Amino acid sequence: MPYEYIPPLLNKNNGKIILLILDGLGGLPMNLGGKTELETAHTPNMDKLASEGCLGQTIPIRTGITPGSGPAHLSLFGYDPLNYDVGRGVLSASGVGLSVRPGDIAVRGNFCTLDTDGNITDRRAGRIGHEEAKPIVEILKSIKISGVDIEIAQVKEYRFTIVMRGEGLSDKIADTDPQKTGVPPLKVKAENTKSEKAAALFQEWVDKAREILKNETQANGVTLRGFATNPELPNYLNSYGLKAACVAVYPMYRGVSHLVGMDIIQFDGEKPEDEFETVAKHWHDYDFFFVHIKKTDSMGEDGNFDGKVKIIEDVDKALPMLLDLDPAALMITGDHSTPAKMKAHSWHPVPFLLSSPEYVLTDSQLTFGERACALGGLGTFSATETMSLALAHAGRLSKYGA
Amino acid sequence: MPYEYIPPLLNKNNGKIILLILDGLGGLPMNLGGKTELETAHTPNMDKLASEGCLGQTIPIRTGITPGSGPAHLSLFGYDPLNYDVGRGVLSASGVGLSVRPGDIAVRGNFCTLDTDGNITDRRAGRIGHEEAKPIVEILKSIKISGVDIEIAQVKEYRFTIVMRGEGLSDKIADTDPQKTGVPPLKVKAENTKSEKAAALFQEWVDKAREILKNETQANGVTLRGFATNPELPNYLNSYGLKAACVAVYPMYRGVSHLVGMDIIQFDGEKPEDEFETVAKHWHDYDFFFVHIKKTDSMGEDGNFDGKVKIIEDVDKALPMLLDLDPAALMITGDHSTPAKMKAHSWHPVPFLLSSPEYVLTDSQLTFGERACALGGLGTFSATETMSLALAHAGRLSKYGA
Repeated sequence: MPYEYIPPLLNKNNGKIILLILDGLGGLPMNLGGKTELETAHTPNMDKLASEGCLGQTIPIRTGITPGSGPAHLSLFGYDPLNYDVGRGVLSASGVGLSVRPGDIAVRGNFCTLDTDGNITDRRAGRIGHEEAKPIVEILKSIKISGVDIEIAQVKEYRFTIVMRGEGLSDKIADTDPQKTGVPPLKVKAENTKSEKAAALFQEWVDKAREILKNETQANGVTLRGFATNPELPNYLNSYGLKAACVAVYPMYRGVSHLVGMDIIQFDGEKPEDEFETVAKHWHDYDFFFVHIKKTDSMGEDGNFDGKVKIIEDVDKALPMLLDLDPAALMITGDHSTPAKMKAHSWHPVPFLLSSPEYVLTDSQLTFGERACALGGLGTFSATETMSLALAHAGRLSKYGA
Repeated sequence: MPYEYIPPLLNKNNGKIILLILDGLGGLPMNLGGKTELETAHTPNMDKLASEGCLGQTIPIRTGITPGSGPAHLSLFGYDPLNYDVGRGVLSASGVGLSVRPGDIAVRGNFCTLDTDGNITDRRAGRIGHEEAKPIVEILKSIKISGVDIEIAQVKEYRFTIVMRGEGLSDKIADTDPQKTGVPPLKVKAENTKSEKAAALFQEWVDKAREILKNETQANGVTLRGFATNPELPNYLNSYGLKAACVAVYPMYRGVSHLVGMDIIQFDGEKPEDEFETVAKHWHDYDFFFVHIKKTDSMGEDGNFDGKVKIIEDVDKALPMLLDLDPAALMITGDHSTPAKMKAHSWHPVPFLLSSPEYVLTDSQLTFGERACALGGLGTFSATETMSLALAHAGRLSKYGA
C-alpha cells in the first residue's frame, strides 16, 4: 500500500476523479523577464478553473531531481519511485506496449557489432537507425526457446526489449554488456540459484540470436541489461478503492498504468478531443480516469516553444468535454517539466490545478501558470500526495480517528 | 551518502556553485509592523538577483527547532543532523580549529573548583573570565602522556577542548561531570572494553592536570564531557562529485567544512571583499565554494539591529566580485535566523535566494527579504535540500529513470 492509512478511511461515496496529465507541462521563459509556455498560452477554461479552484506546484521525485517518465508517473499515482523500484526491463517493456505479468522476465537489449573473434567493436552497432534496425528486430522474433514464450519489440534505433514468459523464472541476472569494446559480451549469469533457469534460457536465446544475425554487418550481436520482473505494485483498487481507467495514446503510459492495475481503454485518434470523448463514453464504468496528453512533452523536447503553447491551447479548447461530465475532482498537472528552452525534462516544480466545485478552498490565483502556482493555496508538495487530494475532494475519505 | 540517489545521477558538467552563508541572516522586526534587518538593508545587488532568480525559505533542522551552528551547517551541506551525529567533542574541537582525524578522540573540558577533599564546590570554577583562563589552558598544554599526542585549545571562558591522537583509541567513554557539587569529579570510565585504553589515558591526563593546577584558587580541577571521534561523514566528492572549498574566517565553520571533506583556504583579512577575492583567486581550482560571513550572526547576538543591517549592506556592496565570476548557481542564505530582537539564534525559517541565469524559474518576487521569501517560488523547504538544488541548477544531475 503506498499509504497504509488510506484504505481504512475509504468510504462508499462515488465521486468521480479525473487526473489530466499534460506531459512535461512545466516550462521556463525563453528569455529573462519572459513568460513560460503555460503562461503564454491562451487558456480561458483553465484560467476559470484556476480562479474558482486552487493551485499549487509539485515536486515529482525529490528537489532538484529530473525524472524519467516512468518514475514521474509512479509518483503521481502515489508510489514513491524511491520506494517502489520498477526495474528498467519492465519500464522498457511497458514503454513499447509489451505486457509484463508477475513471473515474466523483461530485459532491455542493444544490438552491438562483433569482430570475427566475437569481441565487441561497437557497443551500439554503429548507432544504426530506427528503420534500419526494424527488420533485424523482426528476424529476432523468429527465435523459439522450448518451454517459454518470448515477445520482442523495438524500442528506438539499436535498442529493443524482450519479455520471457514461463514457469520458474527469476530475475536476479547480471547485465551482459561488458561496458567496453575489445571483449566479448558477458555470458548470461544468474546471481542466485533461483535465477539459473532463466539465465540459461536467455543464454540459449543469445546464442541463437548470434547465429541468426551472423550475416549482418553491424548488428551481428546483442547485449542484455536490466533483467526485471513485474514488481507487483499494490493496485489502485486496494490502495484507493478506485476502479481506474487509463486513456493514453502512448504505450509507455499505458504500461505504467497497467502496472498499478488500471484498465487500458482502447480508442481511435490521438487528439485531446478523442481522449476526452473516450472518457465520456466510459464515464459510468470507472471511478477514476488517468488521461494522458503526450505532445506537450514532445514539443518541449523539440525546443518548440510555440508548438507547446499550441498543444496547451488545444487541450484548453477541448476541456469543456471533461467539465460537462461534472467530475467531483479534476486535477490538471504534468508529470514533470519539459521547458522548450532546455529541450529536455527538468527538475523544476510542476504547475498543479485542482478543481472541485463542492469542496475546494479557493485561493487568490486567477490564472493557470507557473508563477500563479508558486503562490497557490496548495503550496509546494510532493507529487505522491496527488491521490490523497483527489480522494478527499471526491468525498471518498472518512475521518481519521474519533 | 546523505542522498543515495544523487551519486548515480552525477554527470561531467562543470558548472560552478557558490553557497554564500550570512550567518544568522534571518531576523525579526523590532516592533510590530516594522521591517526585519534584511528588509531594512539597502541591497540593490541582492534585489536584482531576487527579481531575476527565485526565492524561498528554509527550515534548518525541523519546524520550531533552533539550531546550533554545527548542526545548521551540516544541514546546509545536506547532512541531516538528526541522522548524522557529530559528537559534541568533535564540534567543539572543530570550533576552535583543532583537527579531529578518524581515530582521534575529542572531548570538551570545563575548569571546576575543588575543595581540599577533592569535592567540587563550583562546576564552572566561578565562571572565570576568558583572559583569566587563557594562561591556565597554556599550563595544561605542558602535560605529556606517553604513547599519544594531545592538543588543547581554549573555547571560551572556563571551557576548553582536548584532542587525543594515538593507536587503538575509542570514544565510548562516560562524562566525568557529576552534574552536582559536593562530590568529586567522576573517574574516566569506559563504556565498552574497546574504549578502556583511551579512558585510562584520559584519567592519567586528568590526574596530571589536578597536580599541575593544585595551586590555582578557582580553576584547580577539570571535568570532561562529550567524548567523540571523527564521524567520518561521507565527503563532498563522493556525495556530490564536487571539489569543494571553504572560505571562512572563523575556525568553527572551517572545522565543520573540513569534516565533510572541503579544502580550507587560508587568506588574510576578514571583510567580505577579502573572502570574495579569495574565491576569485581560487575560482579555477574548485567546483564549489562555501563562503561564510560571520558578523551578521554576531550583530544579531549582540542585539545590534543596525549593525546587522550594515553587515548585510557591506556584503551586498561586495557582491559584484562574486557575480563577475559568473557562477552557474549562486545561493545566498543563512544557516539559521539570529534576530537582533532576540539576541540569540532562533527557529524561524531562513531567507533563501537562488540565482542561476541559465536554468532558474523566476518567481514573482522583486526584493530579498523574509516576506518576499515566504512567497517565493521555491516554497518552504528543508535546508538539507540546498545541495540538490545547487547541483540541478549547475547542470550536474542526469535524469532519474527512463
